[in-house]
Amino acid sequence: MRTIYVVGIGTGSPKHVTIEAIEALNRADVLFIPDKGAQKSELADVRREIIARYVTKPDARQIGYAVPRRNAANPDYGQGVNDWHDALADIFSVLIADVPTGGAGAFLVWGDPGLYDSTLRILERVSIPVRIEVIPGITAIQALTAAHGIALNRIGEPVTITTGRQLGPVQIDSVVMLDGQLAFLEADPNLQIFWGAYLGTADQLLVSGRLGDVAQDIVATRNAARERHGWIMDTYLLRQPQ
Amino acid sequence: MRTIYVVGIGTGSPKHVTIEAIEALNRADVLFIPDKGAQKSELADVRREIIARYVTKPDARQIGYAVPRRNAANPDYGQGVNDWHDALADIFSVLIADVPTGGAGAFLVWGDPGLYDSTLRILERVSIPVRIEVIPGITAIQALTAAHGIALNRIGEPVTITTGRQLGPVQIDSVVMLDGQLAFLEADPNLQIFWGAYLGTADQLLVSGRLGDVAQDIVATRNAARERHGWIMDTYLLRQPQ
Ligand SMILES: C[S@@+](CC[C@H](N)C(=O)[O-])C[C@H]1O[C@@H](n2cnc3c(N)ncnc32)[C@H](O)[C@@H]1O
Ligand SMILES: C[S@@+](CC[C@H](N)C(=O)[O-])C[C@H]1O[C@@H](n2cnc3c(N)ncnc32)[C@H](O)[C@@H]1O
Repeated sequence: MRTIYVVGIGTGSPKHVTIEAIEALNRADVLFIPDKGAQKSELADVRREIIARYVTKPDARQIGYAVPRRNAANPDYGQGVNDWHDALADIFSVLIADVPTGGAGAFLVWGDPGLYDSTLRILERVSIPVRIEVIPGITAIQALTAAHGIALNRIGEPVTITTGRQLGPVQIDSVVMLDGQLAFLEADPNLQIFWGAYLGTADQLLVSGRLGDVAQDIVATRNAARERHGWIMDTYLLRQPQ
Repeated sequence: MRTIYVVGIGTGSPKHVTIEAIEALNRADVLFIPDKGAQKSELADVRREIIARYVTKPDARQIGYAVPRRNAANPDYGQGVNDWHDALADIFSVLIADVPTGGAGAFLVWGDPGLYDSTLRILERVSIPVRIEVIPGITAIQALTAAHGIALNRIGEPVTITTGRQLGPVQIDSVVMLDGQLAFLEADPNLQIFWGAYLGTADQLLVSGRLGDVAQDIVATRNAARERHGWIMDTYLLRQPQ
């Protein structure tokens, strides 16, 4: 049996890694590093820097793998995701076969492995039997609220984590992730927004205020930054006015 | 000006601390440790163990402080919380006065400082001007999903973080915290539940399954554990059946 550590590495800063994550990475014989293409190479760089700083096991190997693109053109979203998971499961099976029997491999997962990440679901489809151990990581949500110095929840109140696709009228305070479509532009302008991009990195950007007052500022900041980097990752909290 | 680090320390395991948290703790001249009474002394112990393991600054001082109890008998919940924050702000002002001018103090906050925690709100009421820096931490939610080896979200779906008091009919998958009233007993028995207590500690307990099948098992496990420890902290995810 092989052990696969699914290690949350936080969302941008190599200093987001936990002691538990460092220990798991140091138990791995093979470290798997996803590559999402030249434009997002900074994300692979964070992983390499974490390994360079914290992995001291002398004979650990690093194996990079190209992440195929999901067919976003598939009109059936569920089927598109399903096909993509299948393709990745085939890649994972090949990668894991490279882990010595009785040994361990580690996937370095952005943020926390439980939050809008498919690594665990893909591992369920891998053809080789493995023992999975998940190491929690700092999510973009904690990085967002820490950077703004705010609480996620109003006192005793709920908050919903959702995506740009799913954001409807904001009845419950909401954190929005995976929003390529600027869903906040459709929301009530009287909401408070706390927006952050490249959280945890040296390029971190923050904007906050009454949505109606700052929405265009966010659009402009976001467009300019995406132009500069070639990619963007942003997250925001929409909160009822107090 | 004094700097106050509000440091998320994770939810039970000293290994949940991040490198960033360790660095912040090592910049502090004074480390503040809340004491919630003899029964919950294990929680203060985790903080002391984190300091013993990771703080190497030779002259850092540790100051414990007793956390007053919130008057839960106040029929006005908001007013009860408000009075409690005021009382704590007075205590914090005295604590912070002990930080050398130009120096730094650190509050070790359970989990992440943004999630159902009042430290940031209390610091807003402190009479001494301070510069606040928040260090994100692993929350009970990440600890829960990692322990169960599951994703928090179904693919692309939202999830609500809520409390026992606020849990109503579960339309959106929900994580429930701060539930002393066993709110899951009122929920649809066909939901899936992933329950965890003392997450991250050697005493971690996990139960999962169809709510109707495992609810009584959770009640019994929970009661026996609370009896044994004198206190309990538990969190659970309620998920629509697939
Ligand atoms: C596929 S999800 C992965 C989330 C990750 N597992 C986590 O725990 O945060 C990617 C989304 O996370 C958010 N995100 C991740 N890293 C971020 C960062 N450094 N700054 C802002 N948002 C980030 C963005 O909303 C992005 O669209
Ligand atoms: C006042 S809130 C603090 C939450 C904390 N700031 C966090 O980020 O997880 C306390 C609640 O968190 C949850 N909790 C905290 N630590 C836990 C643990 N080790 N195991 C299970 N639940 C925990 C429980 O629901 C508990 O009632």
